[in-house]
Amino acid sequence: MFRNQYDTDVTTWSPAGRLFQVEYAMEAVKQGSAAIGLRSKTHVVLACVNKASSELSSHQKKIFKVDDHIGVSIAGLTADGRVLSRYMRNECINYSYTYESPLPVGRLVVQLADKAQVCTQRSWKRPYGVGLLVGGLDESGAHLYYNCPSGNYFEYQAFAIGSRSQAAKTYLERKFEGFTESSRENLIKDALFALRETLQGEKLTSSTCTIAVVGVGEAFHILDQETVQSLINEFEIVGEEPPADEATVPDQGGVAEPGPADQGTPTDQGVTPMDV
Amino acid sequence: MFRNQYDTDVTTWSPAGRLFQVEYAMEAVKQGSAAIGLRSKTHVVLACVNKASSELSSHQKKIFKVDDHIGVSIAGLTADGRVLSRYMRNECINYSYTYESPLPVGRLVVQLADKAQVCTQRSWKRPYGVGLLVGGLDESGAHLYYNCPSGNYFEYQAFAIGSRSQAAKTYLERKFEGFTESSRENLIKDALFALRETLQGEKLTSSTCTIAVVGVGEAFHILDQETVQSLINEFEIVGEEPPADEATVPDQGGVAEPGPADQGTPTDQGVTPMDV
Amino acid sequence: MFRNQYDTDVTTWSPAGRLFQVEYAMEAVKQGSAAIGLRSKTHVVLACVNKASSELSSHQKKIFKVDDHIGVSIAGLTADGRVLSRYMRNECINYSYTYESPLPVGRLVVQLADKAQVCTQRSWKRPYGVGLLVGGLDESGAHLYYNCPSGNYFEYQAFAIGSRSQAAKTYLERKFEGFTESSRENLIKDALFALRETLQGEKLTSSTCTIAVVGVGEAFHILDQETVQSLINEFEIVGEEPPADEATVPDQGGVAEPGPADQGTPTDQGVTPMDV
Amino acid sequence: MFRNQYDTDVTTWSPAGRLFQVEYAMEAVKQGSAAIGLRSKTHVVLACVNKASSELSSHQKKIFKVDDHIGVSIAGLTADGRVLSRYMRNECINYSYTYESPLPVGRLVVQLADKAQVCTQRSWKRPYGVGLLVGGLDESGAHLYYNCPSGNYFEYQAFAIGSRSQAAKTYLERKFEGFTESSRENLIKDALFALRETLQGEKLTSSTCTIAVVGVGEAFHILDQETVQSLINEFEIVGEEPPADEATVPDQGGVAEPGPADQGTPTDQGVTPMDV
Amino acid sequence: MFRNQYDTDVTTWSPAGRLFQVEYAMEAVKQGSAAIGLRSKTHVVLACVNKASSELSSHQKKIFKVDDHIGVSIAGLTADGRVLSRYMRNECINYSYTYESPLPVGRLVVQLADKAQVCTQRSWKRPYGVGLLVGGLDESGAHLYYNCPSGNYFEYQAFAIGSRSQAAKTYLERKFEGFTESSRENLIKDALFALRETLQGEKLTSSTCTIAVVGVGEAFHILDQETVQSLINEFEIVGEEPPADEATVPDQGGVAEPGPADQGTPTDQGVTPMDV
Amino acid sequence: MFRNQYDTDVTTWSPAGRLFQVEYAMEAVKQGSAAIGLRSKTHVVLACVNKASSELSSHQKKIFKVDDHIGVSIAGLTADGRVLSRYMRNECINYSYTYESPLPVGRLVVQLADKAQVCTQRSWKRPYGVGLLVGGLDESGAHLYYNCPSGNYFEYQAFAIGSRSQAAKTYLERKFEGFTESSRENLIKDALFALRETLQGEKLTSSTCTIAVVGVGEAFHILDQETVQSLINEFEIVGEEPPADEATVPDQGGVAEPGPADQGTPTDQGVTPMDV
Amino acid sequence: MFRNQYDTDVTTWSPAGRLFQVEYAMEAVKQGSAAIGLRSKTHVVLACVNKASSELSSHQKKIFKVDDHIGVSIAGLTADGRVLSRYMRNECINYSYTYESPLPVGRLVVQLADKAQVCTQRSWKRPYGVGLLVGGLDESGAHLYYNCPSGNYFEYQAFAIGSRSQAAKTYLERKFEGFTESSRENLIKDALFALRETLQGEKLTSSTCTIAVVGVGEAFHILDQETVQSLINEFEIVGEEPPADEATVPDQGGVAEPGPADQGTPTDQGVTPMDV
Repeated sequence: MFRNQYDTDVTTWSPAGRLFQVEYAMEAVKQGSAAIGLRSKTHVVLACVNKASSELSSHQKKIFKVDDHIGVSIAGLTADGRVLSRYMRNECINYSYTYESPLPVGRLVVQLADKAQVCTQRSWKRPYGVGLLVGGLDESGAHLYYNCPSGNYFEYQAFAIGSRSQAAKTYLERKFEGFTESSRENLIKDALFALRETLQGEKLTSSTCTIAVVGVGEAFHILDQETVQSLINEFEIVGEEPPADEATVPDQGGVAEPGPADQGTPTDQGVTPMDV
Repeated sequence: MFRNQYDTDVTTWSPAGRLFQVEYAMEAVKQGSAAIGLRSKTHVVLACVNKASSELSSHQKKIFKVDDHIGVSIAGLTADGRVLSRYMRNECINYSYTYESPLPVGRLVVQLADKAQVCTQRSWKRPYGVGLLVGGLDESGAHLYYNCPSGNYFEYQAFAIGSRSQAAKTYLERKFEGFTESSRENLIKDALFALRETLQGEKLTSSTCTIAVVGVGEAFHILDQETVQSLINEFEIVGEEPPADEATVPDQGGVAEPGPADQGTPTDQGVTPMDV
Repeated sequence: MFRNQYDTDVTTWSPAGRLFQVEYAMEAVKQGSAAIGLRSKTHVVLACVNKASSELSSHQKKIFKVDDHIGVSIAGLTADGRVLSRYMRNECINYSYTYESPLPVGRLVVQLADKAQVCTQRSWKRPYGVGLLVGGLDESGAHLYYNCPSGNYFEYQAFAIGSRSQAAKTYLERKFEGFTESSRENLIKDALFALRETLQGEKLTSSTCTIAVVGVGEAFHILDQETVQSLINEFEIVGEEPPADEATVPDQGGVAEPGPADQGTPTDQGVTPMDV
Repeated sequence: MFRNQYDTDVTTWSPAGRLFQVEYAMEAVKQGSAAIGLRSKTHVVLACVNKASSELSSHQKKIFKVDDHIGVSIAGLTADGRVLSRYMRNECINYSYTYESPLPVGRLVVQLADKAQVCTQRSWKRPYGVGLLVGGLDESGAHLYYNCPSGNYFEYQAFAIGSRSQAAKTYLERKFEGFTESSRENLIKDALFALRETLQGEKLTSSTCTIAVVGVGEAFHILDQETVQSLINEFEIVGEEPPADEATVPDQGGVAEPGPADQGTPTDQGVTPMDV
Repeated sequence: MFRNQYDTDVTTWSPAGRLFQVEYAMEAVKQGSAAIGLRSKTHVVLACVNKASSELSSHQKKIFKVDDHIGVSIAGLTADGRVLSRYMRNECINYSYTYESPLPVGRLVVQLADKAQVCTQRSWKRPYGVGLLVGGLDESGAHLYYNCPSGNYFEYQAFAIGSRSQAAKTYLERKFEGFTESSRENLIKDALFALRETLQGEKLTSSTCTIAVVGVGEAFHILDQETVQSLINEFEIVGEEPPADEATVPDQGGVAEPGPADQGTPTDQGVTPMDV
Repeated sequence: MFRNQYDTDVTTWSPAGRLFQVEYAMEAVKQGSAAIGLRSKTHVVLACVNKASSELSSHQKKIFKVDDHIGVSIAGLTADGRVLSRYMRNECINYSYTYESPLPVGRLVVQLADKAQVCTQRSWKRPYGVGLLVGGLDESGAHLYYNCPSGNYFEYQAFAIGSRSQAAKTYLERKFEGFTESSRENLIKDALFALRETLQGEKLTSSTCTIAVVGVGEAFHILDQETVQSLINEFEIVGEEPPADEATVPDQGGVAEPGPADQGTPTDQGVTPMDV
Repeated sequence: MFRNQYDTDVTTWSPAGRLFQVEYAMEAVKQGSAAIGLRSKTHVVLACVNKASSELSSHQKKIFKVDDHIGVSIAGLTADGRVLSRYMRNECINYSYTYESPLPVGRLVVQLADKAQVCTQRSWKRPYGVGLLVGGLDESGAHLYYNCPSGNYFEYQAFAIGSRSQAAKTYLERKFEGFTESSRENLIKDALFALRETLQGEKLTSSTCTIAVVGVGEAFHILDQETVQSLINEFEIVGEEPPADEATVPDQGGVAEPGPADQGTPTDQGVTPMDV
């Protein structure tokens, strides 16, 4: 087989000026279950698909509260995401202890990105394998950022990451112009509709998703299951088979292994995958 | 032979965004003898199969008391498991010394998971090769967690790990809806029945299994052999040949070596295997 | 395939006395979107193309204020660029705290270059993958420098880096003799015209570019979008298909992957590339 | 030749979840001369075969006193064993200095096992190549443990390790049920008979074996040669050719090199082997 | 292709007792633009070819003042050269602070050489890729040294390094016997003539070269462009096509890549080469 | 050629549980010139063959005084041996300074062995390539130990190591039973006869051997050349061609390179070999 | 090509117990220009061939004064030699500062050898590539030592190292018996004659060699060129073509590259070789 000699060490550049190991870590984000963020002028809604590794288990937590004014939704390696959100929590605590005011969202996002960058420039580490949608509210308003394994971050009006996120992005792109002025309820509604797009016909229920909100006068919190279910019912959101050409194909790109490069690996993905 | 260039270093990502070394460490869990956990509202029962490496030896200890309110049952590399349970014990002691209250189960589980995550991001370490079922009781009730070599953890109503655990999981999935309201005795009974499923027709006796309980008003403790035997007798649990298609096939997947990849290794598994 | 044994470690010389890993890092600069700098006797103008990774996101920040008298525009790995501009900011703060005067531009540029050189001489690091156009004003006048991943720096009258920068350089070479005496407005105008050259027929609007100015009596600042748009309108800068032989060919050299050397990499460049 | 890419680094997992380097270190134990341990309620007897590298030398010491209540018999890399018994000795001294009571045997065994585990999780170390039979007496009675290079330990009624130990294990398995109530003399007698089984027809004399005892009212000590010889005479233990099918075959597995994997190595085992 | 297994690590000796990595670093010197030094009893003249990476940039500085009595001209990796001249500057400052007298040239050269030697004996570093012509005046007279990447240094009457330096060396060898007694003006004249030899027919102008002088009663300084141009005019130095057999052939050896060993590297040398 | 993947790193186990790098280091001992030790109840005699690398040089020192009561004779890498005997000397000085009594021989030998063991368990070191015959006298009598690169040590009545030592060992085995009661003079005589056996017909003279003695009432010292020559004359020891089948064949095993494994190495052993 | 897997790391033993990297470093000594030492009872003379890398340069210094009573002449990597002689100088200064007496020659030589040995036992270093002839005078008389890259040292009556040294050694072996009683002048004369032997017909002049003397009542110093020339004239030493079979053949062994193993290396040995 062709052997790429530039893609096993994070500190090795390819002849075309690429860092393959960083790009591969970005692939890990695509393998996690979908996470979605939307932002109006006053609110940020984070949402994610819950996937339990078996009937017997609860789903893995994918949305974390960082502080009263900040939360995060992750896709990719859950363990990496958990470690990073704990880092964010500590930064918030230290800041508010020192300055007696909440840490601005943009500042936290930069610190998080710098922490990720370091892991792309040391031969004995690896880039984090997780993408983080950071939603928060500060003096400059509501913010939604996406922090990437490469150490980059981007500000978004709305964004979706993870497995089958392309369908959700398509939905969000059709709608995002109204988000700035959207009400809290409409924002949640759009989050639920976007989430449904990633389910490929599975039914959206309060147990298969988590919704969190932060906004003016409303500290970051995860909505309880009843609230979510009643919203689903209210919005009459039901899963329906999406047109094959739109949803299936991007989906393939997101979750299917590219075959030969990874063949022969024994993981039984149905049991306890690393990144559900 | 095909050579996978991405699966020998824990800090190397595959092109599809996977960490093979972490996945391989998860295979080590499947090679250990089975461990089972069940939880009602008030009790957690941990159980495991005892496998002595010879007639002359006692079986290796696979269930450890961590604190009065927490215990752990392991499958995989016993040495790794022992080191991790000592870590848990120290954390509990330090916490109760500082705060004069027992360490919440969920908090301990996160610390344990973070410790495992570090081993997946340093080139000179290796991921732990052990899965831990952590059972405990705290102010928020009874809890059962599974901590995985990847640094992930999952909350479960009931779970089984290790060799031939698929049969036990099938049993637990059929029954788990009643567990929440189950009595202590019924929980133990179901633990014993689930354990029997992993034995492939071997007789379940008090010497081939260990049962531990923690619950309201009952500190974590391992049941003595007489108690276990009388329960087995009471429940009339006897081994019987399970249907070939249900038990044998998952079993193969769990314990059989995938042949060519590992051929030529000289370990005599009957003597002192690393993970019995 | 032919295997170059000298191009995977930054501390390995080739038989001809080259450091391939440093040269490869310089390729990363060419993959970033274009950045441009121009200097008159009294002003420096920095400009860059904004490329949002999707409709939903804002573009990534590519021009950073370092101090009142210094700013930087980057092309290449944005995360590396951000980390380096934070370093520059700290150096400026420390200097002015100690000496109560602004850090001379040339001195900062040397410190930055030395920091980059270190990364070309340690086996466990990698060269930075970012080029920086540093513009500033100090007692010796207006300065424009280009800092390269190799640890080299160059003083320029005007320069363009990044994807499709060849067309801009051609434009600047035709015009640069007048820049020294150019007015602030003409400098900005030339920046906009040069920028347009890199767009290959895309329309130049205030949202697809960022313009920053520092000059006598004018602290470094990024022009707001309205100002930029009115300048574009005033100068009647519209994109038009550049002659194929002039713009297309150098362009190819800049952004196209050299195919076989990097084939088989799964990055979906349209989503969240590392270096937009 | 087939190349196993997972078996040269101790921190590399095989796809089936095995650590080959740890398993290979366990093979080193099989290459050492035999060591045997037996335990009654009140006494532990350790025994080993003495093998001098030449007529001119004394045999290497294979049984070490750790403290008045603990001793150890090793098989495998003698240098590793010596270093580990010194560690045990220090732990005993420190404990009794601090607590003014002897270190419990089980506790020492766990510390020893933890020390061995560390060597299985650092890329710049190697697992110890020695097995240790630890015999001791404490408040909870007489104990016999086997500590393995993997970091595992096992409690035994009686056990044999090292070259040709299978024959001794077979003997011990036939007899072990009586050991608990056995007298000190009978325990020694059984040790001598088990030892003879490993000699393949060589004559058992006081110079070809070492016997040590620890028990109630009897500090750990090595029996002097006269005592051993008179016991051998008393028990009329003489070597006799064991049935070929029983002793020869396990023997082959234990000491013979598996040929091709290790061919071409120049060690003259008759002179100063590492592990006699 | 033939693979040399001894030429990728600086700490690996070849069977013939050579350090290839050090020799390869010496090749880097040949790739830089030419630098020349000449010495009379009272003066040292340093000269170098200026090569700007484009019309838009100033040329890179290749002659550095170290102290009032010492200067240096470099060829090879400019970043390495800059870092080393800063080191020399610090050594001079520290010495004169401590001893209140200027650091003798020879002593500085040894310290510089020792610093270079260290980089040839550590596996995680690389040899510097730069040659330095160090010119200075101290109590023992005027000195010219050449410091090589190997950690060696040589004292010279006159020397030329870098690309196409062979032609200049040939010129200097014809003339050097008169240098000791040469006047300051003649020394500069010979420097200019030698420099012209490296230009292969390009016109020598004050903008394509830099000349620096240090001498009795004359601190180290770089001649301003007007002075240089008037000297060129005075000496009527114009470029003329040198005989093909004398200049072209050594030239080839100096700058041409040996083809296959380095093929396929994407550097566009016309833009921002590492070593102009 | 067949490639053994387990024999280049000292921390890598072979599948059969061997450490090849340690075994290879033991081969280095066989390549040094012969060293011999003999012990009576009251005296230890150390002897070695002197081999000068040329007529012009004195022979390398191979017997070192460690303390008044201890000396050492080495075979193998002389530099390693020298470093280790300096270590022994320091240990003796420190001990006698602290305890005001000489360091017991056995204790020093264990410390030396532990120092050697460490070099067999660190990936960035190598085992020492030297064997040491340690002779000494303490309260428990005269002692002779052999310390091996593996970290093992053995107590001997008499022993020979190094090139062609097999013939000397054969001699010693024939005679050793009388050594315990041997007089000082007879011990020296036997040392000289044993040494002659290693010479393959070369004449034994006072210049081709060194003899050292330590004993009751006699501090460790090297006999002067006259004394040795007069003893040789007195004992009428002359070299004579040993029977071809006895001496030649073991000899081959000791000094001959195994051909293909080491072919192509350029060392001219006649000049300054590492281990004469 | 045949690949020797044991000869690229200094810490790897070959199956026959050799350290190839150390042997290869010893080859570097043979590539340096010749150095010679001779010793009488009262004087040591050091001599070396001067080889300037071009007409324009002075020759590299190859003889260093260490202290008033010690000097050194080197062959091999000059930079390594210079660093080691500075180390020796420091040791002498420290010793005489502490003890108010000169450091004995033998003691310095051991320290130097130990420093060299360390470089043969650390994976991240390399053995020094230089041989040192250390000549000195202390209370025990005049001494001449040869320190080798292996960490060994040898005392010599007279010795020659470096390129074409075999012819000089042959000369010295014919004459050395008279050296002990030789006068200072005769010693120098023999040094010059031996030196001439290495020149292969080149004329010996005061500019092609350096002579240094240390002796009773005469501090170590390098003879000035006039003195050397007058001695050459006095002794009528002229180069003459040595018999082809005696000088040419050993010569080949010393300087010729073994062809294929090192082919394709681009060093132009005529310019600035590492080891002239």
